[in-house]
Amino acid sequence: MKVGVLGTGTVGRTIGARLVELGHDVKIGTRDVAALLASTEPNQITQETFADWHAKNIAVGLGTFAEAAEHGELVVNATNGAGSLEALRAAGEANLDGKVLVDIANPLDFSQGMPPSLFVSNTDSLGEQIQRAFPQVKVVKALNTMNAFVMADPSLVAGGEHTVFLCGNDEEAKAQVTEILRSFGWRDVIDLGDITSARGTESYLPLWLRVWGALGTGTFNIAVVQ
Amino acid sequence: MKVGVLGTGTVGRTIGARLVELGHDVKIGTRDVAALLASTEPNQITQETFADWHAKNIAVGLGTFAEAAEHGELVVNATNGAGSLEALRAAGEANLDGKVLVDIANPLDFSQGMPPSLFVSNTDSLGEQIQRAFPQVKVVKALNTMNAFVMADPSLVAGGEHTVFLCGNDEEAKAQVTEILRSFGWRDVIDLGDITSARGTESYLPLWLRVWGALGTGTFNIAVVQ
Repeated sequence: MKVGVLGTGTVGRTIGARLVELGHDVKIGTRDVAALLASTEPNQITQETFADWHAKNIAVGLGTFAEAAEHGELVVNATNGAGSLEALRAAGEANLDGKVLVDIANPLDFSQGMPPSLFVSNTDSLGEQIQRAFPQVKVVKALNTMNAFVMADPSLVAGGEHTVFLCGNDEEAKAQVTEILRSFGWRDVIDLGDITSARGTESYLPLWLRVWGALGTGTFNIAVVQ
Repeated sequence: MKVGVLGTGTVGRTIGARLVELGHDVKIGTRDVAALLASTEPNQITQETFADWHAKNIAVGLGTFAEAAEHGELVVNATNGAGSLEALRAAGEANLDGKVLVDIANPLDFSQGMPPSLFVSNTDSLGEQIQRAFPQVKVVKALNTMNAFVMADPSLVAGGEHTVFLCGNDEEAKAQVTEILRSFGWRDVIDLGDITSARGTESYLPLWLRVWGALGTGTFNIAVVQ
């Protein structure tokens, strides 16, 4: 499938490379392609510049937000939560309308110190804000409850025996995203209902951040057990 | 140990009975003992009136909030989150100061419909509100991330292989609460740090409520896996 991935940070790179590995035709999008390729800033987690990463992952196409969105039959929002609405506006309604948008972003607010708080929560969510701003897009919130490496390859943790959540208003879109999740290796996929359930998965982040602190690693997840 | 349990709903009853079963000397506290014993209102989950439950659990002592707190060397807050500060004020500083308070309450706000939202979250928490209101009390937030039956007997779920979190400012208090949790059957106890981590465990409730909805049962929990 043709997939557009918005965002070139750890999540965008990792999901983009994984989708290529699984045979998809991927273009990742950024605000300014020339500036990104010229940047000498290392990624905070991998310590790699984007150019170094892209030289090793040349099969991942690169373009503007609009070009990536236009390319995708399905689009992934892997931007920072604080920049998501702006990135989606730059991608353009015409390039998004009618498509499935997998929204991985979290509304993290780093302005109050660490660990971050959320800039929207409790009675609203970033997933809902995106759905309201783009009513013709089929927003499916998913994969926002673990780190990028675990998202793309759940076998990294506990033999893959743990849980990913999704929610959204469109049943067919959720079925399509579930198929992609299964292709990543996810076996326990829990559908929480409509997009208002993004309040649940985004509100989990404050707990996730503190478990990360307690364990000293982000390579973990939760398994829902009965 | 002498334990005072504030609150006579499902959590207070279940934790109180479990502590008695484990050999503790327990008094559970309520606002108005006579009114509680006269009440014909069935518990929403067990369908039992308090008097019917108490007749079967006569070893659990009963008193006012103040009498239960005075009785306890350790006190458990099992009241509704919305009524917790008022119940603790009724229990009285003199009966609480210097003691460990296990705070199980969640700041659920049912005024906006179902599922409930939180009346404090994100940059503050009920656990912190309680700690600020009672600075001489050693507040340990714990057990607020699963239903009452699982709290008291984790073997009900997945052979007991799942996680309970705790946080608080006093290390000795957390060690004492950890011992009690282990006596309940908890094996995976994760210390998240100081009482500000209550923002993490309370913010998990919106996700917990939606997983409950998706599974159709409250008898589940999460296991942190690596």
